[in-house]
Amino acid sequence: NCPAKFATELSTSGGKHRTYFASTMAYRTVERGPPNSLDYRVYFQDESGKIVSPFHDIPLFANAEKTVFNMVVEVPRWTNAKMEISVKGEMNPIKQDVKKGKLRYVKNCFPHHGYIWNYGALPQTWEDPNHTDKDTKCKGDNDPLDVCEIGYKVAARGEVMKVKVLGTLAMIDEGETDWKILAINVDDPLAEKLNDIADIQREMPGFIESTFEWFKIYKVPDGKPLNTFAFDSKPKDKAFALNIIEQTHGQWRELITGRTDACGISLKNVSVKESVGDNKISADVAKSIVDDSPQPGDANPISPEVDKWHYVASQ
Amino acid sequence: NCPAKFATELSTSGGKHRTYFASTMAYRTVERGPPNSLDYRVYFQDESGKIVSPFHDIPLFANAEKTVFNMVVEVPRWTNAKMEISVKGEMNPIKQDVKKGKLRYVKNCFPHHGYIWNYGALPQTWEDPNHTDKDTKCKGDNDPLDVCEIGYKVAARGEVMKVKVLGTLAMIDEGETDWKILAINVDDPLAEKLNDIADIQREMPGFIESTFEWFKIYKVPDGKPLNTFAFDSKPKDKAFALNIIEQTHGQWRELITGRTDACGISLKNVSVKESVGDNKISADVAKSIVDDSPQPGDANPISPEVDKWHYVASQ
Repeated sequence: NCPAKFATELSTSGGKHRTYFASTMAYRTVERGPPNSLDYRVYFQDESGKIVSPFHDIPLFANAEKTVFNMVVEVPRWTNAKMEISVKGEMNPIKQDVKKGKLRYVKNCFPHHGYIWNYGALPQTWEDPNHTDKDTKCKGDNDPLDVCEIGYKVAARGEVMKVKVLGTLAMIDEGETDWKILAINVDDPLAEKLNDIADIQREMPGFIESTFEWFKIYKVPDGKPLNTFAFDSKPKDKAFALNIIEQTHGQWRELITGRTDACGISLKNVSVKESVGDNKISADVAKSIVDDSPQPGDANPISPEVDKWHYVASQ
Repeated sequence: NCPAKFATELSTSGGKHRTYFASTMAYRTVERGPPNSLDYRVYFQDESGKIVSPFHDIPLFANAEKTVFNMVVEVPRWTNAKMEISVKGEMNPIKQDVKKGKLRYVKNCFPHHGYIWNYGALPQTWEDPNHTDKDTKCKGDNDPLDVCEIGYKVAARGEVMKVKVLGTLAMIDEGETDWKILAINVDDPLAEKLNDIADIQREMPGFIESTFEWFKIYKVPDGKPLNTFAFDSKPKDKAFALNIIEQTHGQWRELITGRTDACGISLKNVSVKESVGDNKISADVAKSIVDDSPQPGDANPISPEVDKWHYVASQ
């Protein structure tokens, strides 16, 4: 982990931050490098064609009602490739996680197939690894806040979706707090009926249990221990989740304004006024970062091993 | 159902049939019509390029050891399109089932995604609708015998796979017996350890329960009742399954030799010597059937409704 150079007082402040509103913003993705290769990247473009960072430039809030957020989909439901916003890559493209030089795919733990939600991140949030959460007593995992979107459609990789937040669970992964926000696409037919954590159990019986089970066992086939959860493995409600979002939005703000050591994270962006140093770059420079990245190419084949089912005992 | 024109005595005889051996046969598929359209068809071609019927021309047995069979994969694991060998279509291509003029997709019943096995049929078998099974007291469903292949790879549509038979379950669907043979690809790494029904439970805990659950509930979202099973919802072992295969192979033989009324089923083939009438056709005529079918085309889009999860209570 990155050592704390600055006092963590500021980064734990939460407080009232200015928020960005961009309710009707539309984004497109720009793929570079061959799919299923180490070079594969998915960059983001706003509707004017400008390259943007999905970590810094896409606003957290999708509209003034605070419970509607932008979510960046990294892993569409029922897929296995562990795609994530690259916090260190310039303009923070989505790339596939790499372990020991190999592209990482999450294992299928029976009866599940790949991820059981559209999985992604909230822009303009950050789980500060210098910050110890008062509830979980664990530090952040150095990534944007994770979101599980439970609507009925399978999203596209890189889709920027407007979501309602419903609750959260607090996964503890190797001593780090890794909040998982539960949310639903505001356009989903069920969205009206889902307003808080208890509504999920009523409309989608078994889904929350499966969500805990999934996170508990998903690394076991890779030789890792079962994951655990704070709060006696109970999900927390919407109000609690909103507070987590506000905290991690605050931690991101400390980062982007230079009050937390970035420690390898790329803060390059094209729109954040409070950026420090030369992090706010021109559209032309942002474009050149994409132009200099590997050319698009035909997809590489994926090993059939990725399709295997693993039988993991969860007790 | 088709009325019995002939006595069913012959068709229930079981008995010792000559069997076809073709251990190293390789097959290819020929797609016609746009995928996801009413016109879509998958024809079969043998290694010499001759169009064959997957129902009649592909041998039931893949080698002399009777427990290795050819299986025609109709539905790859984790897909929803209800593809099946068209018993009435000339040369019996795979086509998508149609209900009320619409392409049929099976619903995803939580926590499952599409079919949980590679699903297909045994060639040269037939569940005679004129024949009442002595155990289930139900009639056949007029289709080739269904197979659930439980290996780790996701098969290709139309793949002809060599499988070991492990057992069977007896689904009762609207009063018709619909045997489901459980089998595994002989090339699967687990195949050596799987020799009978009990081995599945040991190597793949929960899979048999999920198999029953899946068949029990999968039509509920379409407004159908829960399916039931003979034998107190217990699977039957390999020996029992082999007997079912032999019986339905016998029923197919009654059909192809004209001793059972075909009643709309296309018996056209290019290789079955015992064929009656003009059912055995030349390679050129078989080719012309494919040539006269709709041209291949770009795939139609699939409705996102197909991706929906349905929450079905099974009690």
